[in-house]
Amino acid sequence: MARALKVAAAQVGPVHRSTSRAEVLARLIKLVEGAASQGVQLVVFPETTFTTFFPRYYITDDKELANYYEYETEETGPVTETKNVKEFFDHAKALCVDVQVGYGEDTGKGRYNTAVYVSGATGKVLNKYRKVHLPGSTEPFDLEPTTTNQLEKRYFLPGNFGFQAFRASSLKEHCGGTSPIVGQLICNDRRWAEGWRCYGLQGVEILCCGYNTTAYAPQLWGGDQNISREKAYEEAMFHHKLVVQAHAYTNSMFCITAARAGNDDGRHPLIPGSMIVDPEGHIVAESKTEDDELVIAVIDLDDCKQGKERTFNLGKHRRPELYGRLVEGGGVQPPPDE
Amino acid sequence: MARALKVAAAQVGPVHRSTSRAEVLARLIKLVEGAASQGVQLVVFPETTFTTFFPRYYITDDKELANYYEYETEETGPVTETKNVKEFFDHAKALCVDVQVGYGEDTGKGRYNTAVYVSGATGKVLNKYRKVHLPGSTEPFDLEPTTTNQLEKRYFLPGNFGFQAFRASSLKEHCGGTSPIVGQLICNDRRWAEGWRCYGLQGVEILCCGYNTTAYAPQLWGGDQNISREKAYEEAMFHHKLVVQAHAYTNSMFCITAARAGNDDGRHPLIPGSMIVDPEGHIVAESKTEDDELVIAVIDLDDCKQGKERTFNLGKHRRPELYGRLVEGGGVQPPPDE
Repeated sequence: MARALKVAAAQVGPVHRSTSRAEVLARLIKLVEGAASQGVQLVVFPETTFTTFFPRYYITDDKELANYYEYETEETGPVTETKNVKEFFDHAKALCVDVQVGYGEDTGKGRYNTAVYVSGATGKVLNKYRKVHLPGSTEPFDLEPTTTNQLEKRYFLPGNFGFQAFRASSLKEHCGGTSPIVGQLICNDRRWAEGWRCYGLQGVEILCCGYNTTAYAPQLWGGDQNISREKAYEEAMFHHKLVVQAHAYTNSMFCITAARAGNDDGRHPLIPGSMIVDPEGHIVAESKTEDDELVIAVIDLDDCKQGKERTFNLGKHRRPELYGRLVEGGGVQPPPDE
Repeated sequence: MARALKVAAAQVGPVHRSTSRAEVLARLIKLVEGAASQGVQLVVFPETTFTTFFPRYYITDDKELANYYEYETEETGPVTETKNVKEFFDHAKALCVDVQVGYGEDTGKGRYNTAVYVSGATGKVLNKYRKVHLPGSTEPFDLEPTTTNQLEKRYFLPGNFGFQAFRASSLKEHCGGTSPIVGQLICNDRRWAEGWRCYGLQGVEILCCGYNTTAYAPQLWGGDQNISREKAYEEAMFHHKLVVQAHAYTNSMFCITAARAGNDDGRHPLIPGSMIVDPEGHIVAESKTEDDELVIAVIDLDDCKQGKERTFNLGKHRRPELYGRLVEGGGVQPPPDE
């Protein structure tokens, strides 16, 4: 195994609206310590890792809402240096582990659903990604405090960095002298082929993706409103795995997915399904619980070659001159009926 | 079921290099008659339906090669009128069944891997699609006559029509007065998200896709050259289903896939896997054999609405301004390593 890495998805179990930041940080630090003790070089954490998944709530108290973001301005410096979460990043650096971590970002000018990839060697941010495909709506379904809403379009701006791959230079020496090419997606992005392909076109070998995916919220999905909780859970897991496996395969890359899982507040269930998927679309490791859990695998980046050089040789088989519709905008335009 | 249709995939079993055109036509006619007798309104046939899958052979005899194409020039008129295959299309029209059929097309100026969609009401070609994503190579792996090659890039030009959806006006009255929106793909195209999304952006409700997919040819795929026949078959079926289910789900459309299946010439095995997949990515019907077989289901096109209006509302959630890489060309461009 010429370019082997030991990687992990750090699944995080229930984080309630009432869970303190101190408790969350302690749990995250325990996960990164556990990974380091097993020789893991890269750990992927979920979306909005430091708090509960707040876009499910219709929050009218601006002070509460403000607590769900990390503040990154010229004054504060990068998120790794901000007082609320610095302790976590300091541990990762001390343990020399690369981490991808998702969080609500407030720049003072805009709020984004963000993930940073931080070098374990230097503690520096190697890349920042802002979620492009925000699901849901700006207005809540109803004002019942128990409803699971999906208000990302209310609380975040769509990501404005596009899909910029980068080299994890921190892992260069572990990888036969060639730094891994890494891409980042967040939650709903994994259902959209466009982001994956933008990364495929940059030769990405490892795709990192954290998520919060509700296990029961028929009002969000439409369709059968009387679906059982068991069936809804099964469907959500099926769709999650289907898109990750298919897009990893068709872009010949590994993917590490990390879930915020479990039943938040005792009434907002989230699926687990933290996985490591190989470039042929196979699940090589998968979470077994809905709690804090490390999912670990050794992967060989050379396994990306088969797909990238043959079946999914993008330079050889794609026909970009025929894909104009993909960038046209204007939404769906059906052919006229007679 | 407001917009219900009865549809079928017509799987076609072994067609050897030595199988006569007359035998193939008789089998295809039997399939379309069987479908009509069960009230089916649309039947999807495989890729290169009228002949064996000739791109697997390195053919040096131009006369033999010429026999694998249908000739469509200004003189001959559309394929439905050409003498070699007219009998099949006449039967479909007499039975009032829509058909999609794949074939090698020779226009006198170029050769394409083509599929036509023909109205059962009028016998007219409603749409012609030419395969865009030609797999394989122009040169053979070796000159052994028993080798399974993949020479589509030698025998065909890439499709030049793009991905143009159309209305199957023939089915309008069966569909609550609104003609189904249909898209066409051929074989390897189903592995490429770009074509599916071009159709999704035109509101496609039924995607028709015929294929010939080898069940054992490690020399084509790379990777483990000592893979067992059982494992290779399992992998090929896994990838086939994975991409069809994922792309049907992420574009909220039904998909009908029709295989040329079985062991051609006793040495070139093809997978079956003819299926009807719903807009949530579930297989609703699937072939049970590797022979001639009809796979039939009643589908309700209104089932596309849930995805198209919510999770995969393409107009609402996509960000085309960030997808520039998809149409840039120039192949894969990795970020520089330090």
